[in-house]
Amino acid sequence: MSLLLTGATVIDGVADKGIDGRAILIENGRITAIDRPDALTVPAGTETLDYSGKFLIPGLMNANVHLLVNVMLETLVRYEGRYEDLIAEAAQVALKGGMTTVFDTWGPRRALMAVRDRIDRGETPGSRIRCAGNIVGFDGPFSDDFDKRIPGVGSSHFVDRINATWVENVGRHLMWLTPDEVGKEVRAYLERGVDFVKYASNEHGGASAGAFIAFSERTQRVIVEEAHRAGLTAQAHTSSVEGLRMAIEAGCDLVQHANTTGPTEIPRETLELFAEKNCGAVIFPLTDNGFKILKESISDPEWTIWKASDVNARNLVDSGASILLANDGGILAPEVMSEPMVKGTWNGLPEEEGLNRLATGHFVWLRAMEEKGMSPMALLHAATRNIARAYHVDDDLGTLEAGKIADVVVLDQDPLKGAKNYQSVHAVIKDGAVVDRDALPEQPLLTADLPPALEEETHYKRALHHGARLPGCPSCLNGSH
Amino acid sequence: MSLLLTGATVIDGVADKGIDGRAILIENGRITAIDRPDALTVPAGTETLDYSGKFLIPGLMNANVHLLVNVMLETLVRYEGRYEDLIAEAAQVALKGGMTTVFDTWGPRRALMAVRDRIDRGETPGSRIRCAGNIVGFDGPFSDDFDKRIPGVGSSHFVDRINATWVENVGRHLMWLTPDEVGKEVRAYLERGVDFVKYASNEHGGASAGAFIAFSERTQRVIVEEAHRAGLTAQAHTSSVEGLRMAIEAGCDLVQHANTTGPTEIPRETLELFAEKNCGAVIFPLTDNGFKILKESISDPEWTIWKASDVNARNLVDSGASILLANDGGILAPEVMSEPMVKGTWNGLPEEEGLNRLATGHFVWLRAMEEKGMSPMALLHAATRNIARAYHVDDDLGTLEAGKIADVVVLDQDPLKGAKNYQSVHAVIKDGAVVDRDALPEQPLLTADLPPALEEETHYKRALHHGARLPGCPSCLNGSH
Amino acid sequence: MSLLLTGATVIDGVADKGIDGRAILIENGRITAIDRPDALTVPAGTETLDYSGKFLIPGLMNANVHLLVNVMLETLVRYEGRYEDLIAEAAQVALKGGMTTVFDTWGPRRALMAVRDRIDRGETPGSRIRCAGNIVGFDGPFSDDFDKRIPGVGSSHFVDRINATWVENVGRHLMWLTPDEVGKEVRAYLERGVDFVKYASNEHGGASAGAFIAFSERTQRVIVEEAHRAGLTAQAHTSSVEGLRMAIEAGCDLVQHANTTGPTEIPRETLELFAEKNCGAVIFPLTDNGFKILKESISDPEWTIWKASDVNARNLVDSGASILLANDGGILAPEVMSEPMVKGTWNGLPEEEGLNRLATGHFVWLRAMEEKGMSPMALLHAATRNIARAYHVDDDLGTLEAGKIADVVVLDQDPLKGAKNYQSVHAVIKDGAVVDRDALPEQPLLTADLPPALEEETHYKRALHHGARLPGCPSCLNGSH
Amino acid sequence: MSLLLTGATVIDGVADKGIDGRAILIENGRITAIDRPDALTVPAGTETLDYSGKFLIPGLMNANVHLLVNVMLETLVRYEGRYEDLIAEAAQVALKGGMTTVFDTWGPRRALMAVRDRIDRGETPGSRIRCAGNIVGFDGPFSDDFDKRIPGVGSSHFVDRINATWVENVGRHLMWLTPDEVGKEVRAYLERGVDFVKYASNEHGGASAGAFIAFSERTQRVIVEEAHRAGLTAQAHTSSVEGLRMAIEAGCDLVQHANTTGPTEIPRETLELFAEKNCGAVIFPLTDNGFKILKESISDPEWTIWKASDVNARNLVDSGASILLANDGGILAPEVMSEPMVKGTWNGLPEEEGLNRLATGHFVWLRAMEEKGMSPMALLHAATRNIARAYHVDDDLGTLEAGKIADVVVLDQDPLKGAKNYQSVHAVIKDGAVVDRDALPEQPLLTADLPPALEEETHYKRALHHGARLPGCPSCLNGSH
Repeated sequence: MSLLLTGATVIDGVADKGIDGRAILIENGRITAIDRPDALTVPAGTETLDYSGKFLIPGLMNANVHLLVNVMLETLVRYEGRYEDLIAEAAQVALKGGMTTVFDTWGPRRALMAVRDRIDRGETPGSRIRCAGNIVGFDGPFSDDFDKRIPGVGSSHFVDRINATWVENVGRHLMWLTPDEVGKEVRAYLERGVDFVKYASNEHGGASAGAFIAFSERTQRVIVEEAHRAGLTAQAHTSSVEGLRMAIEAGCDLVQHANTTGPTEIPRETLELFAEKNCGAVIFPLTDNGFKILKESISDPEWTIWKASDVNARNLVDSGASILLANDGGILAPEVMSEPMVKGTWNGLPEEEGLNRLATGHFVWLRAMEEKGMSPMALLHAATRNIARAYHVDDDLGTLEAGKIADVVVLDQDPLKGAKNYQSVHAVIKDGAVVDRDALPEQPLLTADLPPALEEETHYKRALHHGARLPGCPSCLNGSH
Repeated sequence: MSLLLTGATVIDGVADKGIDGRAILIENGRITAIDRPDALTVPAGTETLDYSGKFLIPGLMNANVHLLVNVMLETLVRYEGRYEDLIAEAAQVALKGGMTTVFDTWGPRRALMAVRDRIDRGETPGSRIRCAGNIVGFDGPFSDDFDKRIPGVGSSHFVDRINATWVENVGRHLMWLTPDEVGKEVRAYLERGVDFVKYASNEHGGASAGAFIAFSERTQRVIVEEAHRAGLTAQAHTSSVEGLRMAIEAGCDLVQHANTTGPTEIPRETLELFAEKNCGAVIFPLTDNGFKILKESISDPEWTIWKASDVNARNLVDSGASILLANDGGILAPEVMSEPMVKGTWNGLPEEEGLNRLATGHFVWLRAMEEKGMSPMALLHAATRNIARAYHVDDDLGTLEAGKIADVVVLDQDPLKGAKNYQSVHAVIKDGAVVDRDALPEQPLLTADLPPALEEETHYKRALHHGARLPGCPSCLNGSH
Repeated sequence: MSLLLTGATVIDGVADKGIDGRAILIENGRITAIDRPDALTVPAGTETLDYSGKFLIPGLMNANVHLLVNVMLETLVRYEGRYEDLIAEAAQVALKGGMTTVFDTWGPRRALMAVRDRIDRGETPGSRIRCAGNIVGFDGPFSDDFDKRIPGVGSSHFVDRINATWVENVGRHLMWLTPDEVGKEVRAYLERGVDFVKYASNEHGGASAGAFIAFSERTQRVIVEEAHRAGLTAQAHTSSVEGLRMAIEAGCDLVQHANTTGPTEIPRETLELFAEKNCGAVIFPLTDNGFKILKESISDPEWTIWKASDVNARNLVDSGASILLANDGGILAPEVMSEPMVKGTWNGLPEEEGLNRLATGHFVWLRAMEEKGMSPMALLHAATRNIARAYHVDDDLGTLEAGKIADVVVLDQDPLKGAKNYQSVHAVIKDGAVVDRDALPEQPLLTADLPPALEEETHYKRALHHGARLPGCPSCLNGSH
Repeated sequence: MSLLLTGATVIDGVADKGIDGRAILIENGRITAIDRPDALTVPAGTETLDYSGKFLIPGLMNANVHLLVNVMLETLVRYEGRYEDLIAEAAQVALKGGMTTVFDTWGPRRALMAVRDRIDRGETPGSRIRCAGNIVGFDGPFSDDFDKRIPGVGSSHFVDRINATWVENVGRHLMWLTPDEVGKEVRAYLERGVDFVKYASNEHGGASAGAFIAFSERTQRVIVEEAHRAGLTAQAHTSSVEGLRMAIEAGCDLVQHANTTGPTEIPRETLELFAEKNCGAVIFPLTDNGFKILKESISDPEWTIWKASDVNARNLVDSGASILLANDGGILAPEVMSEPMVKGTWNGLPEEEGLNRLATGHFVWLRAMEEKGMSPMALLHAATRNIARAYHVDDDLGTLEAGKIADVVVLDQDPLKGAKNYQSVHAVIKDGAVVDRDALPEQPLLTADLPPALEEETHYKRALHHGARLPGCPSCLNGSH
């Protein structure tokens, strides 16, 4: 069970450039040494992999994915009893794309933890999962926070079951409670085994596009303290300048989509708080081309928000904050991706600009932030070391160093010569073993193709005139027909 | 009270061309003679109007207007108690445009009859109104037939009052009844003083875009018989090929928007029924340019319907049917016309192609049908004599002949040289008196300008970001936010 | 493969009373003789079943079931790919309840025909199915005809597929066509192998509670002629007095829920048409107690409709029409049946008054019609012989006679002594073989119990205060919160 | 212009009981002396009013009314251009009920200030108005904060105009801004002449029943500071325990409906903050009987909220906080009050328990708080002196003392002997003049009766069967029909 990686340029995430002529020795899943080949004592039976001309970087990480993001009624019904399969599929898609560790910041806790543990035990291939379960303060998938049309359409039996499964007693009703009472509920939740805490500083967006505040400063501090007392990191969902500031001041270890603050740009003093408070800044960036495409189909107010998010991203880079790669990465069902209405949204951007696609969005992130002025090494850190530090897993992950878990991505092209080179993944090594990427995902569900249309279906669409608006009546202009 | 019109070319609607050198003598509101000036015995005190170089045609008629078409909640609340003012305004707009008689085929009976009678008595200027009140089988303005969102938004008190005022016991519930029972209700309705009967052969469009049938053939015959027994004409609202055929076979004197039959063209045998049964065919045509504009913003199924309506219009012209000018003419409130959503509909066509504008739509009709191949004299008949005959008022109206009511339009340009010349209205004479067109409408309500925006309003719109869709959440794509 | 049934009172559906002392000999699935035991020549190897003290009646039939009635989005997603399993389950529930033949009058044609054929070939136990597929003129499950909220909630991909599967080109768009064109589409549909034709005389109820007419008299005649030309029977969905009359006059062999005519009672002349035209009258009756329960939770207009349906049921019995048992029998999913809103509807009636439950509703029918005055033998005929005749399958089914298929129900108690005795089913024989009723349904899906609530779920419901209406604001009374 | 009030028991709001044998001398609108009649120097021409056996108390005040509370579309359209008339009507209704000063805490600023000034100048009778205009952070009447169904139903033109008129640049978009930016907008608003500042600590209830927080603690402090810098008092709309605490800590002079904190009771430490911070506690109480009636028609979660509000009310009384009378008093249009849906809400309580009726709700308040244990004198203070102090108008108002404005209510019965005696209003003196209560309101608009139903209307309702649910279809149970 030992491997020797030779011949490649090693970009270890520690040195300020790539180093040639070094080999990496891996034993029992960990890096035991990095040195000139002739300086290494290689155990008998070690397999040598010659990566001449390649580039070795630490396994990529993603500070914000949703392995089960597709919470539409249809999907949740169709796969009920198989959510773990969907999560495993997603973890395998992530791994195939070079992400050896992903942080799932919202999803069904039981199923996520079950897959996490199966992967950790080596029973299932997949990206290493660390998960938060519910976002403290959020209601379930079939609620105002996500899709409020479902109660009444789906059966109460199903709707209640799904919501309860997601919420697990740390949902919206916590907003009614005193800080102490909230702390108590959070404490009980942490005992269920999640890896970190995420809470709502701002609401999710349905009520006032994210402007509302979910928890007072005092309550936010209590939540963060509960996390820290349990030895876990804390983070917040924020979407306004005040919500952001409150989260940093409450002591969060990182903040998600820190650049998203509605139509208002983050003021200078808050930008400075990040470095001061050592709070990781997750940025959700679009590429210049992505912005160009999006602008054509969104309203002015929405565009104002996107534009502010771009200014924020650039300012955060300049502020000295520790920048983290993340993208809400998930797999939308193919029937969703083929809906016409997806076209005009950020979910509908073409693959090369689509930030939130689990398989490829991290590559988009790297190209986008390169455009915004991040240096090659800063990009690498954002995708590896910074995330490990913010999540307090840097003893094991984030760089190529002796003693760390052997998560390595082998690239054909030099990532320090251009962010687009991250896409040239040649091989992925996780826990010291080469991943069989061609075999992933093992069981395509949401990544499978849609069945073709029935003959009746094409005919039906052609004949479907009953929804048409009848010409002839000037009084019928109010959209009720 | 006598007038002599001299010098003009007289296009009397009887001869197959215009005749020069004739004068028209009008006494007590009627034409008493048309002849060479020297052949006329002109009473003392007769005023002579020299119309040299002008063209005299019969007063224009419109077989389908809605003098109170603007049945949105806001308008009906704002003008409650003043519906007669809105109707009078509309009747004056119509008269100003050369229409000396209009047939109102749907509206609030009491208010329409009140204005009709005031105009007939000479107390108010305005186009001569003949009206049907409710369309037998239609529900009220705040119902599935028009705007079903209002019940629950408007108070029950207002909603019920408005619906009842429009429906007057001959609404949708008649569809439940036997033919005999329907006949009885219609008979009671006719006794209230309406001038003709209009009923629903097809539904109004809200349920299945007009495809449903409201009354069986047997019931339709009963309704028509009741009208005829009362000495009134009958007509139907139709919107499918079967609904159309049933209405003609039931004995209707005319059919509204006969060219509107959904996506299906009228079959040959039904086209022939018109002439055979002496049933007037009202056509709702768009101009070629109107079609071009409309096509850009409507769905394929809707376009299919419009296209079929155009084929039908042309086929009806060729079929030998008696063609009638009409356009659902009405005045939409300025706040409606400025709604963005009106743009992509036939109501939003620019004025020169807007068929259903009361002030100008009849001119659009004439140009559109000229494009479809109607001869100059056929156009004139469609706008005058054919309507008078279909409505059985040709003893008094429709041509310039001795004995008829003296409704005359004076044009600057020759209408037989191009349909666009109808717009060159120089003067309108109704009941033998020259109309003071500049004074109309006497009290602009719906034809008045909107007040300008408040300063706060412009600011409010600029600041209104709360409806924006928040970037950042891939699971929120279902439109519920 | 031969059976001898002895000792029972035989109520053969031909004689006007039960006959003792007769045995029934069954060979190869058919009755070969009914006679005194000593007069019969019984082949070697014949199994004798001693039914002393029991009562033998013809296998029960049901003229209107929906083996897949549960077309809510959730159910159709959950069981996609397994609709045949749902249909087989329902056919087995029906058989267990004594119904050896059921006529499915609306459902997905392919799946229904597949199960029909499997049952006919003896591969699956179940009630004999004869099916119509779509109702000509109806749109699919996710449309105005059933549940119009689904398009936009379910993916277009799924919504279109389901609708097309149900509609199969004979949906609402036929209402736009000429009679000839409709005939052509129906002819193509019949070639796909359905057993009879059902079409919409009235709309399904969503638009105007059933008052609209879907097809003109001429079109209805064409549809019926197409069925008859193909050797099939024709029937109609009707819901108004005119819709009903039109269907009978068009030549229908039977009419569904003939007693449902909105708030208006069927006039005498239409009642007489049934016998005159030899048209079977399916009645949907509630028991007196069922009406009592229902009345408490429904609106006055709905009650008016139910009351008229009861008067109609009684008048139809008196009219001499051939009365048929049917009930829209189906299996609603348990999560539907536990919804609070089901309580106040006819679906929510307790089992002993619940007409439309597939397992037991036919017993309710028999008790209800007994209350309305039908004689014991007339009840038996309604449940057997009349249905066989109306569907033109009386050469094989409907009575116990030599030559007919051996479908027999064995009752413990005398059905001629009280309709409630039909429930005392002792055994069911279909195609000459005793059904293993205890084994049915083989695979419970919709008849299985719901899983119990999760612990989180109960907690979630308790904590769910966010939907509450906030006291404190008098201006917020309009229900928008 | 001087008055002498003699013979009555004077309950001046200063002494701890009523005092007999004193007369009140009023000159030029102010009290110049209160003393034994023989000790007073009464100017010539003074009118003496003998109130023997009566009880004189300071003019009643109301800390929270909405003189234009009826912001339904229909009302705002019907009375556009006449909002001042509605406000004047309400101010007169209030005065008639003994309230000489009312604090309007939400409404259209321009119209409120116009009526305020007309009343202050003596041009119109009415209760003295002090007003806040918009609640900082609230959107307009046709928005998520009040009625979100209207945009799209009402014309954009009207909807935008109304919203802008109410919001005046201090609406929801302020939630996006930094504290400094919010401060700037508030400052600009104050310059328009409002009398005090009200802002949203919690949201209005539409999003999460009031649980969301609108402004961070830092922003709240800035808003309060802006008010104080301008010499005005500040108050907050709160609806959760954290929202309440934040408002008090931010320095509010009073808090509205302080007892409304969702399902959670106010913790002890927050109760103590009121006295500590000298923050007035407005309580919205129901009577025991009101609770009993309400309980029957509301959901469990809503009941939990009401129950907590009652516990809070009692605890606030015990806490030593300064309690203020207020009730969101307003006049709902008669067409609203007759809606069936109003029945089950607090707006629909019968008059004797209806807290928020402008004419009588303050009497309900006094009886309700008496039930909760407030002493007679504490009740009087809550309705007078405490309000004057909290609003910083106690130099002029709140007690009967020499030097203060002469606002006096004359009661037939002793208010210290039972709260119900406040209803025995004999006379009202405002600004030293006896109010002609019988003449108020001068022009009844919302207090006028509804017109009777038309004959057609009653018939229409009877015939209205089209909304009925059709029996007959088990698949149609999902409420879409």
